Amino acid sequence: MGRKALAIDVGGTKIYNTIIDDNGNIAGEVEKHSTPKTLDALLTLFKDIIGRHENGVDVIAFAAAGAVNNENTGFIGSTGNMPDGYSDLDFQSLSSKQVFVENDANCAAWAEHVIGASKGMAHSVMLTLGTGVGGGIIVDNKLLKGKCGAAGEMHFKLYADKRRRCSCGAWDCFEAYGSGTGLKLTAEEMSANPNITTYNVIEGMQTDPKMKEIFDRWQNDLLVGLVGLANIFDPEALVLSGSMAQFTDVEYLTKAVNDEIVTAPTCVVHASAGNYAGMIGAALLALGVNNG
Amino acid sequence: MGRKALAIDVGGTKIYNTIIDDNGNIAGEVEKHSTPKTLDALLTLFKDIIGRHENGVDVIAFAAAGAVNNENTGFIGSTGNMPDGYSDLDFQSLSSKQVFVENDANCAAWAEHVIGASKGMAHSVMLTLGTGVGGGIIVDNKLLKGKCGAAGEMHFKLYADKRRRCSCGAWDCFEAYGSGTGLKLTAEEMSANPNITTYNVIEGMQTDPKMKEIFDRWQNDLLVGLVGLANIFDPEALVLSGSMAQFTDVEYLTKAVNDEIVTAPTCVVHASAGNYAGMIGAALLALGVNNG
Repeated sequence: MGRKALAIDVGGTKIYNTIIDDNGNIAGEVEKHSTPKTLDALLTLFKDIIGRHENGVDVIAFAAAGAVNNENTGFIGSTGNMPDGYSDLDFQSLSSKQVFVENDANCAAWAEHVIGASKGMAHSVMLTLGTGVGGGIIVDNKLLKGKCGAAGEMHFKLYADKRRRCSCGAWDCFEAYGSGTGLKLTAEEMSANPNITTYNVIEGMQTDPKMKEIFDRWQNDLLVGLVGLANIFDPEALVLSGSMAQFTDVEYLTKAVNDEIVTAPTCVVHASAGNYAGMIGAALLALGVNNG
Repeated sequence: MGRKALAIDVGGTKIYNTIIDDNGNIAGEVEKHSTPKTLDALLTLFKDIIGRHENGVDVIAFAAAGAVNNENTGFIGSTGNMPDGYSDLDFQSLSSKQVFVENDANCAAWAEHVIGASKGMAHSVMLTLGTGVGGGIIVDNKLLKGKCGAAGEMHFKLYADKRRRCSCGAWDCFEAYGSGTGLKLTAEEMSANPNITTYNVIEGMQTDPKMKEIFDRWQNDLLVGLVGLANIFDPEALVLSGSMAQFTDVEYLTKAVNDEIVTAPTCVVHASAGNYAGMIGAALLALGVNNG
């Protein structure tokens, strides 16, 4: 019988948990919770989830927003809009079973690498295009973590002349353009309408040339980032996930990337590991499952 | 007695060769040749160099301009301004000893990693700032090569709105701004003088505010690239080498990078493995010497 993980995906607004087996299959019910506003309530929720499931699993696997250390035991910096004190949490204290933590975008990249769109590839770059842009990079069948675990941050710049602030505080990061938030900002700039939404753009682009023009600008900014990443990493695939990914034209992007790069041809593909890729990847990492 | 390599550095205008020992020390005379214009003359030169030295060494190590395959046996694409046919050369056919080839910037990065400015560091990014910008990236004590060997190309973009052509044919690559050529182009744009040289800028910047402004713009473009690379790789150091590196203010760059990145603090340092870092790195790679 295969090994199993209790996987817990901790985001700023929602927390999910389920059981994942070592083939990356969901082997339990998926539970969904609102993220508590205080550390005490968050710990109570974690303990409740773990208490109900830990006896049936080999390891507890957290996919968490935030940069996670190379020991996979906790965070290395702040964790944004989570309760005070969460960034200092000693995850191992939550269970007598092994507790493993990894950044959620890294987890999703690992799920794509083992069972998804980049399965069988030693080199890939995954981008999560949502409110922000998350990144998970696979080099030689391993997650790129860097000296502290913070590697894969998609805060390279698309402009060098200070046009748009990123949520990180710096100017003109890829995240500030390639994210859903970036699409809204691009739409505001191009329409002079501060109330325009990403939905207006997506909904309107089939019929309204202005909305199409806005979307194309956004997709071109995404392309600019993909070209840079392809030249830096020479990956077998660039994988797009997250809520905005479905609107991208990966055939166009593949051709356009390959027209510009100096490295060998690559492809842009949609993620295929599903909505629970974060939990699946956390479980596979915690269980030591690779794509070999 | 230690092992030795015959190291040969093949550039578009000059070819160097010498003997390097497994401590990375130069253990022979450094010979310098003009790069022949035809493949026949180039092969004759290679055979002459190898014929005179191969009996005294364990391996032949080429540091070569161009992207080198993951088998380190030859190129994976074109090699720019080298003689026709060179890019298809079977390097192993040149000697009965093992012949090893690696990209020159990768070799220089390896020399910095083993004996130079990033010695003892598992994660570093080296930039060669010369006519172009070369890159060599160390991840987990290994060269980042990518699926084919072409990784580490510094052709991510500094602008997304098509301002300046890069030598690669694409728009606005980091190389088109952060190189010596980039400095000349920036100087032309800012001075409206098509005859201005990088020398004018470097020489004048101590006394002429306009030249200082041009240099600062160039260094800021370099900074923009360094911030992106630090966020992507979370390296222990960003190492600057090449003819333009000496003019950079690494104390300023270190502070400015750390002010902007979302990853953990890093440093910007000058390369220290010397003018023959390419040959030294090629030899150390060919001899299997790492920094462990």
